[in-house]
Amino acid sequence: MTTVASAPPAAPVPDAAPVAGPANLSAVPLRVALLGCGVVGSEVARLLTEQAVDLRARVGRPLELVGIAVRRPHRSRPGIDPALFTTDAAALVARSDVDLVIEVIGGIEPARSLILTALAHGASVVTANKALLAEDGATLYAAAERAQADLYFEAAVAGAIPIIRPLRESLVGDEITAVTGIVNGTTNFILDKMDTDGAGFGETLAEAQELGYAEADPTADVEGFDAAAKAAILASLAFHTRVTAADVYREGITEVTSSDIASARAIGCVVKLLAICELSDPDPTDAADPSPSRDRSVSVRVHPAMIPRSHPLASVGGAYNAVFVESRSAGRLMFYGPGAGGSPTASAVLGDLVTVARNRVRGAVGPGESSYAARPVADIGAVTTRYHLSLEVADVAGVLARIAQVFAEHDVSIQTVRQNGRGAEASLVIVTHRASDAALSATVASLRELDVVRDVTSVMRVEGE
Amino acid sequence: MTTVASAPPAAPVPDAAPVAGPANLSAVPLRVALLGCGVVGSEVARLLTEQAVDLRARVGRPLELVGIAVRRPHRSRPGIDPALFTTDAAALVARSDVDLVIEVIGGIEPARSLILTALAHGASVVTANKALLAEDGATLYAAAERAQADLYFEAAVAGAIPIIRPLRESLVGDEITAVTGIVNGTTNFILDKMDTDGAGFGETLAEAQELGYAEADPTADVEGFDAAAKAAILASLAFHTRVTAADVYREGITEVTSSDIASARAIGCVVKLLAICELSDPDPTDAADPSPSRDRSVSVRVHPAMIPRSHPLASVGGAYNAVFVESRSAGRLMFYGPGAGGSPTASAVLGDLVTVARNRVRGAVGPGESSYAARPVADIGAVTTRYHLSLEVADVAGVLARIAQVFAEHDVSIQTVRQNGRGAEASLVIVTHRASDAALSATVASLRELDVVRDVTSVMRVEGE
Repeated sequence: MTTVASAPPAAPVPDAAPVAGPANLSAVPLRVALLGCGVVGSEVARLLTEQAVDLRARVGRPLELVGIAVRRPHRSRPGIDPALFTTDAAALVARSDVDLVIEVIGGIEPARSLILTALAHGASVVTANKALLAEDGATLYAAAERAQADLYFEAAVAGAIPIIRPLRESLVGDEITAVTGIVNGTTNFILDKMDTDGAGFGETLAEAQELGYAEADPTADVEGFDAAAKAAILASLAFHTRVTAADVYREGITEVTSSDIASARAIGCVVKLLAICELSDPDPTDAADPSPSRDRSVSVRVHPAMIPRSHPLASVGGAYNAVFVESRSAGRLMFYGPGAGGSPTASAVLGDLVTVARNRVRGAVGPGESSYAARPVADIGAVTTRYHLSLEVADVAGVLARIAQVFAEHDVSIQTVRQNGRGAEASLVIVTHRASDAALSATVASLRELDVVRDVTSVMRVEGE
Repeated sequence: MTTVASAPPAAPVPDAAPVAGPANLSAVPLRVALLGCGVVGSEVARLLTEQAVDLRARVGRPLELVGIAVRRPHRSRPGIDPALFTTDAAALVARSDVDLVIEVIGGIEPARSLILTALAHGASVVTANKALLAEDGATLYAAAERAQADLYFEAAVAGAIPIIRPLRESLVGDEITAVTGIVNGTTNFILDKMDTDGAGFGETLAEAQELGYAEADPTADVEGFDAAAKAAILASLAFHTRVTAADVYREGITEVTSSDIASARAIGCVVKLLAICELSDPDPTDAADPSPSRDRSVSVRVHPAMIPRSHPLASVGGAYNAVFVESRSAGRLMFYGPGAGGSPTASAVLGDLVTVARNRVRGAVGPGESSYAARPVADIGAVTTRYHLSLEVADVAGVLARIAQVFAEHDVSIQTVRQNGRGAEASLVIVTHRASDAALSATVASLRELDVVRDVTSVMRVEGE
């Protein structure tokens, strides 16, 4: 049977026919070039040697590491043959005998140029580069498609947790409606510590830096850039559309206070930095649409949020990551594991490497970009969720009525109000029903103008109903 | 670049070259035959129609359902074209125009013959048939390899939870050391209910049957046969070896009492039916082995066990499933979601269907069997774990010393002892350190012969240190 339905059927194969694939080439190695030899790269290089026998059996041919592009070739990297090091990455990826290229340099350039050169020369590429994929994934996909080569990137999101293949393949027959992830270990470690110790952001960040959980320049993590890149990748895959990092609404955790965390605790919640990708609800006026997923917009955002302690994501502690997926048929799924680190990331890289190597042995190519749905990305102002607000208020009669009036004027419905303290210490804690970001922002602006409101001390989204 | 290292390199492709694959055939459907139209099959048939536009966009060609093999063609199945029904399954799978076959009949025969016929005719097969894969997966794999067709079975284990692809592909560059799963929703529902309500097994089973969580004949679930089939599949994939259902040590939950569950609670544990697949520890005398995973045996077992309430599997409630994977590089991962039901299983089937359809469009084939490691399966007697024992003992001086002596004689080390009650009501609760099943069984036999032991009322394994 062929892929052309009108072609004559192939005869049944009753006995062991010769198997396609280069069985007679099983000793000919696939040649691997490695770009970058930091924490992840050196672990990949080490495992390629240490697990060579198993990797060969799994691929069907040996994997031979033929070069490692580094900036400092003379730096000591125990267990790795120094003869492999080169500073000329461009020459390495243009070598005619390289079948597979692993990119673990990170950043936009020179990573993009190197990957494009590798693909143009027909090599398949495995990358952990979330920033590049989130900024310019379409260019990489197109280059891979042109070259009929593979582009795999399991390590780009949530470290060792298999989430890219499940979205690209396992759930590809389903309609995913939401993906909510804790995808940045540094911020999860910090928020977890703040929750446990009651400490503030600044001192907890310093502690995380001392322990090696946060970098000297923590901006990419604590300002949510890292999570935003991952959110763009997850949303693109889940919703068959293109979402770039620039499309992602982003707030970091630097403004989260110990009082926010205490407020969360008081309503049975915990504060997490969430990457949230949502498909908008179907248009109720279009009930006859046979495929309700088309023409629906997506929202993609990264921000701290309160979630109930009973939510599966609430118990994800320390530097662990987890991704919670909701879909029409499968229901609610969760994927949990270590989100970073040399060994876990190397595991994801090597899983991809074996897959693309097997594809090459069989003359096959894995899935390419699926962006047929081409959905609009909703502006954050239109995105609805619940909100938690803390207000310091004057101790005068009728204060609650005046505040409630402001919410009503902006069409924001209040779910609960709690008054803490009395007199000069009085504060109000308000949790709303779902409201748009625009309506909530307008409400907060009006509240700040009210003479009975001394301060709006905290505004935070509440997710995971 | 070709897969032959010595071949001349292909020229770089600077511009949009024609993409391989039948772009001009995009309107020619891939023809799908469905075997079985029960809860899962009817949902698959419904979704194939309802999501046709999205599925076509994801595959690159339409999917056309051309026939559904059923036993009762005249039964009412709303939303499915009755013209599709046929009772002649053998003729359906032998049709020359069928590209893809979905098997959701279950059981060994006629499912096996039908799948083999489909493969022999060149069709790719998607199946949810855990029993068949666990009994005779090797025959199916060999037939798929001969035909250069795909055999995918994500729905066979843990319903909608993507676990097959992660094991076959995402983690294929890593060394998996253990897979521990809650893979049977019926037994998890019953044990969860017994824990919550304090009720016994019999009445809880009756309640589960009334609610539709257990079948009229619950044997396959409560005796652990279903979980054992899934364990065999998981172990085969995780350890690159062949494990059949007959290799799996199996105990069901029919002997679990409310007192076992109360005992578990007393030591901070909960009782779960676990499917446990473990790679034995490396031989410490062979430190120079460059690939420590070879020549190590595996153990595969299904039985009720106590696990700490802090373990990620402990909070998996109701009919949910979860699979916990431990590997050398990735560390500890967990996959969680609905383990059964028409919609979740249909999601897994359709994910596979899109994948094998994409492969067909590209002329590719996904991964085949990986059983190169050919590991021995350890006898249950040699498997070590911790044990919890409850004993009714005589109220005489020196009873603990005599009991401890029996443990010592069998080289089973006691971790904790607690005495409950006094006089005629006295009972002892003992938790051991790791011991072999053989040593523990011999210990229990000796205890039963001791005059101071009136009864050994409960023996249960304790997992998840």
